[in-house]
Amino acid sequence: MNALAEKVSRMLVSKENHPQITEVRVKGCVIGGEQLIVIAGPCAIETEELLKETAFKVRGAGADMLRGGAFKPRTSPYSFQGLGVVGLETLARVGEAMNMPVITEVMDSDDIPAVAEYADILQVGARNMHNFSLLKKLGRTNKPVLLKRGMAATVEEWLLAAEYILAGGNSQVVLCERGSRSAEKWTRNTLDLSAVALAKELTHLPVIVDPSHGTGVRSLVMPMAKAAIAAGADGIIIEVHPHPEKALSDGDQSLTPRQFSILMREIEPVAKAMGRRIR
Amino acid sequence: MNALAEKVSRMLVSKENHPQITEVRVKGCVIGGEQLIVIAGPCAIETEELLKETAFKVRGAGADMLRGGAFKPRTSPYSFQGLGVVGLETLARVGEAMNMPVITEVMDSDDIPAVAEYADILQVGARNMHNFSLLKKLGRTNKPVLLKRGMAATVEEWLLAAEYILAGGNSQVVLCERGSRSAEKWTRNTLDLSAVALAKELTHLPVIVDPSHGTGVRSLVMPMAKAAIAAGADGIIIEVHPHPEKALSDGDQSLTPRQFSILMREIEPVAKAMGRRIR
Amino acid sequence: MNALAEKVSRMLVSKENHPQITEVRVKGCVIGGEQLIVIAGPCAIETEELLKETAFKVRGAGADMLRGGAFKPRTSPYSFQGLGVVGLETLARVGEAMNMPVITEVMDSDDIPAVAEYADILQVGARNMHNFSLLKKLGRTNKPVLLKRGMAATVEEWLLAAEYILAGGNSQVVLCERGSRSAEKWTRNTLDLSAVALAKELTHLPVIVDPSHGTGVRSLVMPMAKAAIAAGADGIIIEVHPHPEKALSDGDQSLTPRQFSILMREIEPVAKAMGRRIR
Amino acid sequence: MNALAEKVSRMLVSKENHPQITEVRVKGCVIGGEQLIVIAGPCAIETEELLKETAFKVRGAGADMLRGGAFKPRTSPYSFQGLGVVGLETLARVGEAMNMPVITEVMDSDDIPAVAEYADILQVGARNMHNFSLLKKLGRTNKPVLLKRGMAATVEEWLLAAEYILAGGNSQVVLCERGSRSAEKWTRNTLDLSAVALAKELTHLPVIVDPSHGTGVRSLVMPMAKAAIAAGADGIIIEVHPHPEKALSDGDQSLTPRQFSILMREIEPVAKAMGRRIR
Repeated sequence: MNALAEKVSRMLVSKENHPQITEVRVKGCVIGGEQLIVIAGPCAIETEELLKETAFKVRGAGADMLRGGAFKPRTSPYSFQGLGVVGLETLARVGEAMNMPVITEVMDSDDIPAVAEYADILQVGARNMHNFSLLKKLGRTNKPVLLKRGMAATVEEWLLAAEYILAGGNSQVVLCERGSRSAEKWTRNTLDLSAVALAKELTHLPVIVDPSHGTGVRSLVMPMAKAAIAAGADGIIIEVHPHPEKALSDGDQSLTPRQFSILMREIEPVAKAMGRRIR
Repeated sequence: MNALAEKVSRMLVSKENHPQITEVRVKGCVIGGEQLIVIAGPCAIETEELLKETAFKVRGAGADMLRGGAFKPRTSPYSFQGLGVVGLETLARVGEAMNMPVITEVMDSDDIPAVAEYADILQVGARNMHNFSLLKKLGRTNKPVLLKRGMAATVEEWLLAAEYILAGGNSQVVLCERGSRSAEKWTRNTLDLSAVALAKELTHLPVIVDPSHGTGVRSLVMPMAKAAIAAGADGIIIEVHPHPEKALSDGDQSLTPRQFSILMREIEPVAKAMGRRIR
Repeated sequence: MNALAEKVSRMLVSKENHPQITEVRVKGCVIGGEQLIVIAGPCAIETEELLKETAFKVRGAGADMLRGGAFKPRTSPYSFQGLGVVGLETLARVGEAMNMPVITEVMDSDDIPAVAEYADILQVGARNMHNFSLLKKLGRTNKPVLLKRGMAATVEEWLLAAEYILAGGNSQVVLCERGSRSAEKWTRNTLDLSAVALAKELTHLPVIVDPSHGTGVRSLVMPMAKAAIAAGADGIIIEVHPHPEKALSDGDQSLTPRQFSILMREIEPVAKAMGRRIR
Repeated sequence: MNALAEKVSRMLVSKENHPQITEVRVKGCVIGGEQLIVIAGPCAIETEELLKETAFKVRGAGADMLRGGAFKPRTSPYSFQGLGVVGLETLARVGEAMNMPVITEVMDSDDIPAVAEYADILQVGARNMHNFSLLKKLGRTNKPVLLKRGMAATVEEWLLAAEYILAGGNSQVVLCERGSRSAEKWTRNTLDLSAVALAKELTHLPVIVDPSHGTGVRSLVMPMAKAAIAAGADGIIIEVHPHPEKALSDGDQSLTPRQFSILMREIEPVAKAMGRRIR
């Protein structure tokens, strides 16, 4: 056991104590298994029509799950805040129609019941990774949780945030690296793929990567998706929008369905080289 | 109007639109007035006896308000999480006995009613600065809010977090700089006093500084308290514990009551040089 | 042309103005061609025997070039500072014996002639990326330069540092990402692979990655080497030491020759997936 | 001796081993004594006329020493690089005429003799703090050195950089905090005044602060100058230009002579509160 493994050795997330990789199963999808999982969809749910169009196209290109935000954590109170419960309903409807499990963010412990009613995986955003009250309550649900790393969180803090959920009794946790804040000006965040390798080495939890938020730059999504897979990630989550230039949020980092389809084709050889298959 | 003032010019926090400095009044204390406000107390409320002893001593040394955590945001789920409602009751009782307004953290929107019942100022911790759901609900209360800057938040994001509260109808907001995460290893955080000067220049809100969390090093609390005052802060918030070596949290950065009393004496000339008085 | 390409559009490094990828040729090795280049060797040259042993083994495992420091930039004046010119001679001798081009760091403009006499590629370390005087003088040599990214340098600054060399007349520049300083405590640096993808997108220069310094953790070298290749790197540079536990510097991040040999085997499928071959 | 003092206890810079504060004396000015030293002047030396005008005015307002760059470390090779030796001559002439010691940057070990001929203090810029070769050679000169902290350097690395100079035999070193790189967008750097307090606590070297580079924002220079003094700094270095809007570099952060004169008046009470006097 090396020095870092020792640091997590008394934690529930530790691979030492639980050598078998946790597989998070959602309606036939398995995150953490041999198959690499691809989650795709718009940043925010805008209209049912747009979501349907996106879902149809990403499904066709090979995506496994559908993402879309109903409650949006926006820096400014004057930015579009998401459709709320109406968005959740839309997401659930489209997911069902396309036979895709759906994932969406929960921002407040009060909203857990509503989000849990409609979503298959509850996402904790980077800005809430240290919202311990939310983490504790998610530990008492029976829904899988996707836990994004906070934008200045160390790997240790990220694993301890996951530990809050496991300690509450919920072991269906997927870690998600989404980039850290840095002084770099040409990218929105600095994607830290060594954190992915570390999390895979030290814990039994599946780890996925968000190269869309992780870079904030459309042309970097593809190379970072490949790099994430080569670093050992169990999946990727990609923002796709039919008309990125008109998106209500995150247009600069969203792929068009066509670009997403090229991405799916191009990541396949890398996935294979890593012994993983794609749907 | 310079370029930065322009960036906030359409916000409720902007000094352009509201040249008069907001004074936050709590039981006879005024934050943002001529008097420099000193808030002191332990990191966490441990026992009523310890809190009383601390309050008695910091009050004697000249502190205006009493701080103490009942709900503690701890990195590890296995660390002491605070006494919760029992801690709130203790804090309120001791504050009343000492005739000191009290301030304590609220970590979850569900806890707002309970915390608001006992506390005179509700603190939003650095880890929750981006908990927009909490901010929105605090905008609908009528209690003053102390808003700490997030550990990797830009000044713009900090001001927009305050804007969430003001936009909700609550203009009793005090900003608090508490240090940003950095690569420096000898301090816990890097205290950014230029953020204090910027916030004072751009907004009408009072700004205080937490040199205890801002440095994490006992011997740095005094020089950084002086520097904060010279940078234009309206007050400081200091961790004091009768027996720092036995504190359940943050012992390394807590002053003893005797050290606090020296600090009060030593900051006085700097406050005077800045045209401020101390109680 | 996108917004970032526009920012570099008037620079000599820009791919817009020079669509053909620069191939840096050194004694039969081509950096920037179809073949992925692997540079390996110890952090510092310690003895001729050790260097020979290392070179023999990494050559056997498939390395293309030999690295080794003679002038070492050490944080403390009391740490081993390298063997200087004696080290250069040793490196040149061993390189010749093994038929491997050699690369070593030049720390001072005064040392350029000596280093250029013995080395095939002159390395500018991260701590000297902003040593503009050194860069200017390297622009006037006719030796290839490997330019590491500074530990807090933005991508723009890194490209402008390269521009200093090109503007001086030397276009044989290889960029090298080696990790940025961050608040993460479990790795020595945060390897920024999006910078690799950006540099490949915006410039015609070859880009390699140093996962040894980029992570500082032995177990992370392999996954980050794979990720680097998947991100589009033209090569990797790896620290190898026969007895890492006895190394005079960087033992924690050095692979044993055996580990290096496994790495060579494991990166091959990823390289192939990216359309690259390994020697 | 506390834990941090212990870390430097075997260094020449340590206050434990050398409790008497080092006073750096330059033509009647003492840095590190009771008097607070104010260094002022333009970023770059542009013309003799401009420099004279600036020197005359800052001298009149109470500045002790004159600054001005002849060799400029510019991010881009296409930016104004300074006047070189002609600039040095100009600086020396103006300094002599005004009876002000002069300080200017040395960027390359080759330039030490030339710079040492004209300047009273040799400045090592932030970008060269890790240029160990330069530091070693400065250790062998008999001129005082002003050592700026690197833009991502830890306090430990900064002190070890000073140690390089002291270990070479030159103990006339002045430390200078000038802000660290951070993710904050509204300031150029994040001025770390706790580093000043730490350096004063742990070493016997004088410490000054550069609030011009430390913030990059004109309106922040004054509050940060005051805060620096309150944090215990032995002096400040301020960029002043008669026509900031026409300056060849750093115009945004330069004060006009009139603003500088107000600054001199306003820092006085803070200096007095700290037991320091101004010329």
